[in-house]
Amino acid sequence: MTQPALLEISRAEHAQRRERLAQRLQDNGLNRICVFGPVRVAYLTGFHFAATERPVALVITDAGDVTTLLPALEAEHFAHQCPDLPAPLTYPEYPGGGSGRHPLTILADHLRAAPQGRLAADHDGYEHRWGYRGPALSSLLGQPVHDGLALIDDLRIIKSPAEIALIREACRWGDHAHRLMQGAITTGVNELMVSHTASLQATRDLLETLGDRYVPKAREGLPANTMFISGANTAHPHGLHRNAGVQEGDVLVTGAYGVVGGYESELERTMHVGDPTPDFERYFSAMLGAQDAGLAALRAGRTCAEVEADVRTFIEDLGLTHLIRHHTGHAFGLEGHEHPFLDLDDHTVIEPGMIFSIEPGLYVPGLAGFRHSDTMLVTTDGAEQLSLYPRDLPSLLIEPLPARMS
Amino acid sequence: MTQPALLEISRAEHAQRRERLAQRLQDNGLNRICVFGPVRVAYLTGFHFAATERPVALVITDAGDVTTLLPALEAEHFAHQCPDLPAPLTYPEYPGGGSGRHPLTILADHLRAAPQGRLAADHDGYEHRWGYRGPALSSLLGQPVHDGLALIDDLRIIKSPAEIALIREACRWGDHAHRLMQGAITTGVNELMVSHTASLQATRDLLETLGDRYVPKAREGLPANTMFISGANTAHPHGLHRNAGVQEGDVLVTGAYGVVGGYESELERTMHVGDPTPDFERYFSAMLGAQDAGLAALRAGRTCAEVEADVRTFIEDLGLTHLIRHHTGHAFGLEGHEHPFLDLDDHTVIEPGMIFSIEPGLYVPGLAGFRHSDTMLVTTDGAEQLSLYPRDLPSLLIEPLPARMS
Repeated sequence: MTQPALLEISRAEHAQRRERLAQRLQDNGLNRICVFGPVRVAYLTGFHFAATERPVALVITDAGDVTTLLPALEAEHFAHQCPDLPAPLTYPEYPGGGSGRHPLTILADHLRAAPQGRLAADHDGYEHRWGYRGPALSSLLGQPVHDGLALIDDLRIIKSPAEIALIREACRWGDHAHRLMQGAITTGVNELMVSHTASLQATRDLLETLGDRYVPKAREGLPANTMFISGANTAHPHGLHRNAGVQEGDVLVTGAYGVVGGYESELERTMHVGDPTPDFERYFSAMLGAQDAGLAALRAGRTCAEVEADVRTFIEDLGLTHLIRHHTGHAFGLEGHEHPFLDLDDHTVIEPGMIFSIEPGLYVPGLAGFRHSDTMLVTTDGAEQLSLYPRDLPSLLIEPLPARMS
Repeated sequence: MTQPALLEISRAEHAQRRERLAQRLQDNGLNRICVFGPVRVAYLTGFHFAATERPVALVITDAGDVTTLLPALEAEHFAHQCPDLPAPLTYPEYPGGGSGRHPLTILADHLRAAPQGRLAADHDGYEHRWGYRGPALSSLLGQPVHDGLALIDDLRIIKSPAEIALIREACRWGDHAHRLMQGAITTGVNELMVSHTASLQATRDLLETLGDRYVPKAREGLPANTMFISGANTAHPHGLHRNAGVQEGDVLVTGAYGVVGGYESELERTMHVGDPTPDFERYFSAMLGAQDAGLAALRAGRTCAEVEADVRTFIEDLGLTHLIRHHTGHAFGLEGHEHPFLDLDDHTVIEPGMIFSIEPGLYVPGLAGFRHSDTMLVTTDGAEQLSLYPRDLPSLLIEPLPARMS
């Protein structure tokens, strides 16, 4: 009997990513790249860690050699997660732990010890996380550091079969969490309580179903999450929670996602509590049509800008362009939003294996916001919807509780 | 009858912070500062927002004038949160939304329109959040941008009475959440499920108790949070969750915090399931002594390094220096870790109004980690412990369930 595979990216695939990056360095006349972004480090090594003010850096050469710089307290954790990588350079603590040295000077010494030509980095020094303060790498070295962010992040755009399988699994749990949440929403419930209770129930179901195949990659957060905002709040695309409780007549804009092997899914729905008004039905229908236009427009060979143009034409034909507040969608994977974007100014050509959200929104001041979002996989002959949750209005109506006698 | 005060920082205090920053610009011969860090923007304006790839920037002049750059979709939200600030510059969308312009070029135009001498910034351009790609501000402007991060973050070190009141309230809910979690832990429970259930119960209690005085500042997350890791995992200071469930003989290292008005608290405890071994008692007692040494060492007029030195001397006298993996603690407030650090290489002088964690840890490979952490306020004559949770071993033992007959 074969063991079911762990729901994570294999060591072999991480090694392949590093080989591809080394090849890109060669192609661009670069000799080494320093990687500071925690998600990029995880992408290239499988080392997932709690990013703090203690810098972590990864150096990859055009020959594929790997060096990591870690705080000493992460060394055992790293050895456990990345047994195939060489032992890291370590520093005692940030800002120095009694060494009298800033951690980045240890990285600079390593880079100076074997000068190897042109150096790139995803950021010129460690990013300013929490209380971190530190020098630019270029100042420390007294040499230019070329912007190499796109060399790495361009690799992340087309997802591998293993990445797609993880996102597909994440969608399954986003859908499940959303279903639990929808079932629990009614008048009077508190937004935070009902959504987090659903997240917790969905997480329990995920852990029971996947068992040891599920490998946690983050220290905080749940692998199945839901949230929603309600009322006139929804007219702001990134509105904050109220605590007033759900009321009859409220419009709800929800979000639900899974996280499996570090990969996220996306699902959002516009719902209504009680009988919708004709105004609500009109805007809902316009939004649904705009999403349909986006779903149909997404296919390999077109550009991101062309998808956005199709959606905007649909909305313009309805005379509702003034209600647009953001573009149609974005790539995602290890992070909730990734490059590229379905935006008039993004001319990236769409290819099979890309993952996008399709989520055109209409925001009616004083009334509500209208937005569905789905996880879409670009295939060779179109696009596959990976989030599978009803999109039609009757499926998204919430029954209010009968009014209590007072 | 007077209205009870909202649990948030007032507009007057945000204005005072900007005045102090303008004064610091003058003192340093600087004329303007660009602020890109989302927490710094919130600190200086009260504008709390979901940070994404869409850049947000704040410009403050040495005369105290304020300009903000926002994506159009945040404009209404900003006007609602900051009615006392001038209308923002907006851009349609990142990367351009059809304008053909990168958002930072709009900021650069504003800065060029009224050249005003020396410019500083907390970061040379927007930080690389999610899929963001963009130029350095210095390249766009063709002029040097001075590092002004410390000008802002130094202001954040000494907390005002209003900030201290929020952190005190946050501690109350961290304590409460931890109490609920401890009450629910026993053998067989899943780490994620039991801690998130406690977080949810504590959140419900917080919302019921504080009512409209509680003003949410974040789109995700709960205002009362708990988590713990268990078993040999705890030997890594930042260990990830297991899913194995709590077992008799496990060591647990917990964390619990509240978030009120955007300000966090800190509380961590080392616990044991069932009767502790003599080995466990020995290390627990050493850790408790080290924390006592830290609590006693923290007082105004000393340096951060001196507090750390006292703790290390205590641990060295026990012959346990090899079990240290990190320094004694850190400042915090709007973020979980802030500058300065209780570290041998941090010579910041401690002053009344500073908030620190005191959390020396001992990590015994293969056995467990030992760490308590408390929220401490430096006062004029010592330090006050704001997190009030039992620290002694008998209070932190978990009763295992009786073994089931098989």
